[in-house]
Amino acid sequence: MRTTVFLPGDLDVCSIAMAGSFCEARLVIQTLEWTESGVRLLDQTKLPVEESYVTCKSYQEVAEGIRNMVVRGAPAIGVAAAMGIALGLKNSSAARLADLARDFDQICEAMGKTRPTAVNLFWAIRRMREKFDELRSNSLPDIKHALVEEAQRMYTEDIAANQALGRQGATLMPARGGVLTHCNAGALATCGYGTALGVIRAAVAQGKALHVYADETRPFLQGSRLTAWELMKDGIPTTVISDNMAGALMHQGKIGAIVVGADRIAANGDVANKIGTYTVAVLAHEHRIPFYVAAPVSTIDLETPEGSSIPIEQRNAREVTHLGGQQLVPDGVAVENLAFDVTPAAYVTAIITELGVAHAPYGPSLRSLAEARAAPQP
Amino acid sequence: MRTTVFLPGDLDVCSIAMAGSFCEARLVIQTLEWTESGVRLLDQTKLPVEESYVTCKSYQEVAEGIRNMVVRGAPAIGVAAAMGIALGLKNSSAARLADLARDFDQICEAMGKTRPTAVNLFWAIRRMREKFDELRSNSLPDIKHALVEEAQRMYTEDIAANQALGRQGATLMPARGGVLTHCNAGALATCGYGTALGVIRAAVAQGKALHVYADETRPFLQGSRLTAWELMKDGIPTTVISDNMAGALMHQGKIGAIVVGADRIAANGDVANKIGTYTVAVLAHEHRIPFYVAAPVSTIDLETPEGSSIPIEQRNAREVTHLGGQQLVPDGVAVENLAFDVTPAAYVTAIITELGVAHAPYGPSLRSLAEARAAPQP
Repeated sequence: MRTTVFLPGDLDVCSIAMAGSFCEARLVIQTLEWTESGVRLLDQTKLPVEESYVTCKSYQEVAEGIRNMVVRGAPAIGVAAAMGIALGLKNSSAARLADLARDFDQICEAMGKTRPTAVNLFWAIRRMREKFDELRSNSLPDIKHALVEEAQRMYTEDIAANQALGRQGATLMPARGGVLTHCNAGALATCGYGTALGVIRAAVAQGKALHVYADETRPFLQGSRLTAWELMKDGIPTTVISDNMAGALMHQGKIGAIVVGADRIAANGDVANKIGTYTVAVLAHEHRIPFYVAAPVSTIDLETPEGSSIPIEQRNAREVTHLGGQQLVPDGVAVENLAFDVTPAAYVTAIITELGVAHAPYGPSLRSLAEARAAPQP
Repeated sequence: MRTTVFLPGDLDVCSIAMAGSFCEARLVIQTLEWTESGVRLLDQTKLPVEESYVTCKSYQEVAEGIRNMVVRGAPAIGVAAAMGIALGLKNSSAARLADLARDFDQICEAMGKTRPTAVNLFWAIRRMREKFDELRSNSLPDIKHALVEEAQRMYTEDIAANQALGRQGATLMPARGGVLTHCNAGALATCGYGTALGVIRAAVAQGKALHVYADETRPFLQGSRLTAWELMKDGIPTTVISDNMAGALMHQGKIGAIVVGADRIAANGDVANKIGTYTVAVLAHEHRIPFYVAAPVSTIDLETPEGSSIPIEQRNAREVTHLGGQQLVPDGVAVENLAFDVTPAAYVTAIITELGVAHAPYGPSLRSLAEARAAPQP
């Protein structure tokens, strides 16, 4: 199998060698990467000022990197966790299968505790567990090697899924004008190319003259720090706005479509995504602007019937009260720091996946996408 | 005339002596003040970390303080400009009326160029001009003295108007629960007590058990820095949220009412206020939560027929791209920094003023309030 992965713009070239397949990926942004010395993460907490990398040499370091948002974005979290599991297993000194299985459980448990909302994390852990269970009759070195390969396969599949998803969504974008996105559902939130930004990249590659309005996305500023950074690298015109400007721009007629990512999509089409997504969806509804969600099928969680069942992470108050050492809120004042919100399916115009575009009623349309994915590939 | 001005909580006491009147003001927050050495401003750019004051010794320094948002908030801007005009005139070395009038024109012109949206600025300049014109037959020292008095009268009237407005609005607040406010329309945006926060203060003084949710209000963070600071000083329970959390909290049923200030209210009831107000109004409409605007009658601009005629200030991009020296947006990426937006009258449940509460249709209700104000007082 040979898959060629392109990102637009003036690009670095890197190659990803995989057992049984070869992916010549032209990735300008190397969000995460399996290396012989560990899992290498682009440190997203340092962007946009500094492009630096950390190499996690233990699964605990990978878990810490996920928890502290060195790597973030639902698809990237999933693959980082898989690589962390592969790394932990590789480092295990177990001499017998029972001991290796005990280490494996411990590693998976640590990974599962890092972030509660992104379902891709649990999907990735389950997939690694299935692979582990499948290989129990093999030698320990073979098991370790196969799990490293499985994590790398998930990496390549993620990029391919994003590109397919981008093509599916590109036709829904207007021919020209403003498109709003919230948070970062780009190359930095995935293994490369991106979901919401993948749709925008594919539309631009098709010749559409889009101008991206990027909500800065308080408190962690994924929009101003990350979306702006990666779109600038690609030469896609971008304007950063504070989250509260989106309504005024929609009222002025500057926004023709909205596309965002997702951290978990319930069986009924309710979408958990970065805090503020729901507000954007309500504004879109009021202004009759299409509101699209772009995510791989692995983000659809048929076991969660509706949005109210999705656990919503509360993050550290300091993300709201301080920025770069500067205090923004007086001592003694409470803050809320909900990391995500849920957008009811009724506000979602369509859900764009690598296997097709789902429309309401989402119950059957999402189920058929999930089943198409589960079906054996020819 | 004796007016007693109270703010709830554990308060400092200060006295403001005025020719012809005496106001024993218990002001915990001294936003701006006329002193013998100049116009003293609480430096709001330093809050909430540092409570420091600057004394402007020339009208140019007052204009600079308004432009740089050392003092901000429509009613406070109006009175600061009046004090700046009085100060400029007091400092004038003109020996003849014609020269003083020329200086006066120059000072008023400089003040008028500081901020374009808040109509109270132009209202204050017009009122000072009317007083100047009325006194042309007096001696130069008498004119100067009378204009200082006029600025101080505007100060006292503003506090009294806020208190009256607070009483008018308090009855509209729920008996308990969450009330959302955006930006700072408090003591810091006025000469004391506040408009939107005046309504909340009066409701709390009446025994209502309110919990304030304060939008942090990017990019200048008037909510987290200023609203939280002054409500904490008053002991009113407050939770700061990032602007994009308001929708999720409304969806959770935590917000029973919304009250905001205004920078200009057009004759048809369209409201210009801090960027993000429109988004809050759309969210309120979607969740059937009452959305109140609190402002003195001087904020109503009958000469502006509707919101689209209100000039909207674009402020420096750096307010969005940097915070406390930290860079949040990569170099080379554009930003928008609209300082205000316009909320169409259709989203406004009621407009609370010191002379009464206006409801739709706002054309006649606002006109009758403005006429009541213009009528000679008994």
